[in-house]
Amino acid sequence: MSAFPEAWREGIYEAIRRRRDVRAQFSGGVVPPEILARILSAAHQAPSVGFMQPWDFLVVRDPAVRTRVREAFARACAAEASKMPPEKRESYLKLKLEGILESALNLCVTCDRQRLKETPLGRTAQPDMDRLSAACAVQNLWLAARAEGIGVGWVSIVDPAELKAVLGIPDTIDVLAYLCVGPVTYFEEKPDLEKAGWAPRLPLEGLVRLDRWDAKLDGQWPELARALKPL
Amino acid sequence: MSAFPEAWREGIYEAIRRRRDVRAQFSGGVVPPEILARILSAAHQAPSVGFMQPWDFLVVRDPAVRTRVREAFARACAAEASKMPPEKRESYLKLKLEGILESALNLCVTCDRQRLKETPLGRTAQPDMDRLSAACAVQNLWLAARAEGIGVGWVSIVDPAELKAVLGIPDTIDVLAYLCVGPVTYFEEKPDLEKAGWAPRLPLEGLVRLDRWDAKLDGQWPELARALKPL
Repeated sequence: MSAFPEAWREGIYEAIRRRRDVRAQFSGGVVPPEILARILSAAHQAPSVGFMQPWDFLVVRDPAVRTRVREAFARACAAEASKMPPEKRESYLKLKLEGILESALNLCVTCDRQRLKETPLGRTAQPDMDRLSAACAVQNLWLAARAEGIGVGWVSIVDPAELKAVLGIPDTIDVLAYLCVGPVTYFEEKPDLEKAGWAPRLPLEGLVRLDRWDAKLDGQWPELARALKPL
Repeated sequence: MSAFPEAWREGIYEAIRRRRDVRAQFSGGVVPPEILARILSAAHQAPSVGFMQPWDFLVVRDPAVRTRVREAFARACAAEASKMPPEKRESYLKLKLEGILESALNLCVTCDRQRLKETPLGRTAQPDMDRLSAACAVQNLWLAARAEGIGVGWVSIVDPAELKAVLGIPDTIDVLAYLCVGPVTYFEEKPDLEKAGWAPRLPLEGLVRLDRWDAKLDGQWPELARALKPL
């Protein structure tokens, strides 16, 4: 099959449009194991450079482990706040930036940079392709979770070395993503940071160039320029 | 809306399952501008750390530019082949690894690491979150393209510095992904590298851990362990 039937295409585009980075809306409900298995399987079907499938998935349920992660977050958050310009610091500290304890479970996605190391297809000129592959796996998981009505929030305000210590992850394995996962009361219409006025949505037509960096579309491919404009 | 209706959910999972890294099946057809606009919009709706939306999209149609990129690929491929163990080198050189000239167009996804640099929300402890965000944008685009019947292939066997020179990309901007995009004659059932015996698909149940790296699932969450096993 080439192009998908209309309802399937709608499903893709609606998941992409309705996916949110969830922090404040976790309901306290659980994730049924069959749904967790489906979203992990979605992640595992991501593209990976040289078919190395560099990921592992560490499901974190234990409240004691999560509490230690929450403490590591608090330290990283304080450090980051100190780097914010004074006029932004106050709004930064008001933002809800994680749902580590309120979500049903946490999920640490790792990247084993040594996997298939003897045959480094596709990562000689671009050595971090393994990490980018694992990020694609996170995005697959995020979209599948949205379709299941499960919220996902990515916590990057935490020192990976602290995460590795808490979770017992070996030196040779990278922490790629630490996710909060669980049922939600609702999904926001817009990203939290857009809603809070932290930063605006950029107009897509300003981000598309043709053939060379300094060439804009207008005049050169007017049909595409028109199609990119918001309705 | 929380969980999606069945047909929408099917659409997500089928796109994830049927997405391929396309190299050999480009048909020579064009990508209509309205479809290109939809898949670029899918990319632009990806999650991004601190809502920085670090990406730009450079659409490459010019055959002269693509020929120079193809030459850069050939150099990187030769360099990578020399790193392969002898017993793998021959099969490496037989693989079709790009469709730069045969695809309808190429697409260079970049990452502007300076965007919103004054307010580095989420990238103090993990500085490459901007690159991982841009990788999520690529995955959104890839799935949307699959739903549209458009193939995408990610070429990472090319020196980013050479790409930047050919495309006139400024020093402060990273090349994140160089993609070949276009209609295809068909989509393969399995990844090319799995089909060619380059590497096997790893069993998912071996990649899932619970609470700590050295803890496997069996016994601790048997329902999840069962749900992860292939049918």
